[in-house]
Amino acid sequence: MTAVMSVDARTGRAVEEIAHESSVEEVDAACRRAAGAVAGLDELGRAGRARMLRAMADALEARREELVRLADRESGLGDGRLGGELTRTCFQLRLFADALEDGGYLEATIDHKGDTAMGPRPDLRRMLVPLGPVAVFGASNFPLAFSVPGGDTASALAAGCPVVVKAHPSHPATSQLAYEALAEGARESGAPEGTIEIVHGVKAGAELVRNPAIQAVGFTGSLRGGRALYDIASSRPDPIPFYGELGSLNPMVLTPAAVEERAEDIATGLAGSFTLGVGQFCTKPGLVFVPEGAAAERLRSTITDAVAKMGANAMLSAGIRNAFDHGVRTLQEKPELKVIASAPREGNEGGPAGAAPVLFETKASSVRDADLEECFGPTTVLATYGSEDELFDALDALSGALTATVHTGDADTDLPQRLAAKLRDRAGRVIFNGFPTGVAVAWTMNHGGPWPATTNALHTSVGVTAMRRFLRPVTWQDAPQSVLPAELRDGPADVPRRVDGKLELPA
Amino acid sequence: MTAVMSVDARTGRAVEEIAHESSVEEVDAACRRAAGAVAGLDELGRAGRARMLRAMADALEARREELVRLADRESGLGDGRLGGELTRTCFQLRLFADALEDGGYLEATIDHKGDTAMGPRPDLRRMLVPLGPVAVFGASNFPLAFSVPGGDTASALAAGCPVVVKAHPSHPATSQLAYEALAEGARESGAPEGTIEIVHGVKAGAELVRNPAIQAVGFTGSLRGGRALYDIASSRPDPIPFYGELGSLNPMVLTPAAVEERAEDIATGLAGSFTLGVGQFCTKPGLVFVPEGAAAERLRSTITDAVAKMGANAMLSAGIRNAFDHGVRTLQEKPELKVIASAPREGNEGGPAGAAPVLFETKASSVRDADLEECFGPTTVLATYGSEDELFDALDALSGALTATVHTGDADTDLPQRLAAKLRDRAGRVIFNGFPTGVAVAWTMNHGGPWPATTNALHTSVGVTAMRRFLRPVTWQDAPQSVLPAELRDGPADVPRRVDGKLELPA
Repeated sequence: MTAVMSVDARTGRAVEEIAHESSVEEVDAACRRAAGAVAGLDELGRAGRARMLRAMADALEARREELVRLADRESGLGDGRLGGELTRTCFQLRLFADALEDGGYLEATIDHKGDTAMGPRPDLRRMLVPLGPVAVFGASNFPLAFSVPGGDTASALAAGCPVVVKAHPSHPATSQLAYEALAEGARESGAPEGTIEIVHGVKAGAELVRNPAIQAVGFTGSLRGGRALYDIASSRPDPIPFYGELGSLNPMVLTPAAVEERAEDIATGLAGSFTLGVGQFCTKPGLVFVPEGAAAERLRSTITDAVAKMGANAMLSAGIRNAFDHGVRTLQEKPELKVIASAPREGNEGGPAGAAPVLFETKASSVRDADLEECFGPTTVLATYGSEDELFDALDALSGALTATVHTGDADTDLPQRLAAKLRDRAGRVIFNGFPTGVAVAWTMNHGGPWPATTNALHTSVGVTAMRRFLRPVTWQDAPQSVLPAELRDGPADVPRRVDGKLELPA
Repeated sequence: MTAVMSVDARTGRAVEEIAHESSVEEVDAACRRAAGAVAGLDELGRAGRARMLRAMADALEARREELVRLADRESGLGDGRLGGELTRTCFQLRLFADALEDGGYLEATIDHKGDTAMGPRPDLRRMLVPLGPVAVFGASNFPLAFSVPGGDTASALAAGCPVVVKAHPSHPATSQLAYEALAEGARESGAPEGTIEIVHGVKAGAELVRNPAIQAVGFTGSLRGGRALYDIASSRPDPIPFYGELGSLNPMVLTPAAVEERAEDIATGLAGSFTLGVGQFCTKPGLVFVPEGAAAERLRSTITDAVAKMGANAMLSAGIRNAFDHGVRTLQEKPELKVIASAPREGNEGGPAGAAPVLFETKASSVRDADLEECFGPTTVLATYGSEDELFDALDALSGALTATVHTGDADTDLPQRLAAKLRDRAGRVIFNGFPTGVAVAWTMNHGGPWPATTNALHTSVGVTAMRRFLRPVTWQDAPQSVLPAELRDGPADVPRRVDGKLELPA
């Protein structure tokens, strides 16, 4: 049995053994327990699951100090950021509890018996029901917000699906403690054993996706790792949906008016955004279109000054830092790109996982040939354009992204409108005069986008509608009232319903 | 170039050449025209697309006589049934037009700028937008309702996605005329060229799924053919969603009380249901659990009498009849099954594609070993059970289905409730005291289910929510009013919206 060690991100030293890599039998046992929890979790109902999610938030809060301490040791991200992550995770669990009480997510719909152009129609009632056990792959870069607890776990549990988490190897101690908090919350609120499970190890992850009990997968990570697991999910005898958030360039466009009016502000904001969390955000702006001209020179000099002053900081692990170094070398080798600013790492600054920002420049007309991919870490590429045609040609060459950002100025005419239309087709979220890092947990959030941003652009992994990934519709035809779910019975309802084609709000 | 011939289903003779099999270049050209129509179809807006769908219905109605004549020649299904199909197809197009005017399908959601536990949140607005060009594979068994026109085409066009149909080879003349009607409806309502396209041939179908312009696939057909195309869609460099409706046993359970009280009625209804349309319904009941006992003998004798009196009828093509013969032989060779009634085909009865009903029997305890799959055509299996435990063990062994049916009696106690819960997990539609053949077009319909019923149990291919398959969410952050879609702007809205967490109806 291979030990799973907790490594100090700042020293690179293994501190303690947390678990061992799960065997095939252990993965199967976890999946069987999850399958055994399906009926009980469903029977808790919306109110019972709302109580469970709130109890989970309380149990996480009760371990705040220890969770933040472990997460900081394992990620080096700092107490402030990690405290914020835990706050976010608890807020998210409680928001899903609110959504359960609202009940709109059920899409409850009733068509009473009636005559149609095709003859008589039976009584039909439709609602969404849980899909079954869900596998969740924790991400490295948000140990408390996109890992054991996070949008995938919270939305699957809210939907009524038991969750088996595959812990990320870069923070096993944090994962294990967060898992214990969620399990305690489940126990305290009467949820069945198997509601939340955890496994460790790369092989265990592949086994998890193969396991016949698993009905869907939520994943946040690299394009390569995500594609490999997607291929396993799709080639099962019974294929299952795989919701992977993979890689995104997050293009940003600065209009000439924006740069004319706010060159320094945009440069400062951009420098902060692409280096936030040592550039380890899936929404990091990785390609910025800048108009040629004098104003752009002001922007360029502000951002290169800012970058040159930045030091190195610890990335999440030495492995992730190595991948970043490799990514930067790949960019350096592209003839279309040149480095215009970097903060060379001095000695052991930032520790064994230390990395310093690097800023590249290219021409918009070279973007197609440069064939850029996400480079996870503190780097971005400025692409200068001489005309709107050159800009739009370059945008046409881009693949899908989680976000796209536009900075506009008062002097703009129709360019913002044209950019909004173009970027809507390339991204899941279009941001105006802001920065894409920062993904609010809200009813409205969409965190997803066309390939390779995600494997399935139809759904989001953040926000209330993330639940829809783990629900399937069922229609009851001429069912006696006694066998119908409460939300579909005659009489007043406590959820929004569409009745005979007309949407009705609860009384 | 291989000719595509229209074959008379009753004589087996090729009547006329309709087209040629589409080359790779022709498929690509059709996909490019579809991609070129994306922006224009979107710009038509909800009102414009509603007009387009109604114009398409009108154009189909205007060709009713000729469409029914061609469809009857190519399918042998008869004028009455095919006239009903056309009525259904036109009703469906108009129902989607209504749904566009309602606008609830957009899931419009607004969160105004505000403070949260995690700090300030920007203004966020979310809505669903069209996914892009959709490939639709027509089915053989409903030449006017699940083919060139049908749920896939209507829902994709409603969603704002251009459609490239791969015509089914068993009814090319019907397909071509229906395509011309849809194209006329598109033209008349100002929709762009490329809104609807058609290609012919098996190889063209595979090319279509591979084409980079195609963003999703709707398919109704066999498990084998569907799986092959699903694998192509999933192994693309950029995988796309594949919505396939493949194979379903559609289990039916008769409670002891149901058989005691209504043996003859149920037997008569069942005989009609499994032979309806010569058994060529994807919702045909293929496995019926019957309690042992004297009442069941009455049911058995009624249904065997009914089957023995039935003659042969033409299936859709000689190829489909051959597949049915092969399926029946496979069932005959299973040691767990025996034939208890059949209407042997006499001479050339039913023509070269003629097939006669066959009724099998087995024990519920043998269902797991018999490993049944859908057999497309007029056959079903009665499985007798001696106890509720035996029944539930057999139900546990079943794979996913489009439908599951329960017949109950007044003397039942908790069995209907337990069956409803069990069958909900196995099927997309649960029917009480009726028959599953017949899929109403309605807001509430779900036509889908766990594998192998469909490749994606999260969505339906019939009913208003079928649109959701071809839409993806986009969130606008801090967007100026001028770049927002009308449905997300401030002020009164003509669609339901969730604003700051609260669902609001249009004024």
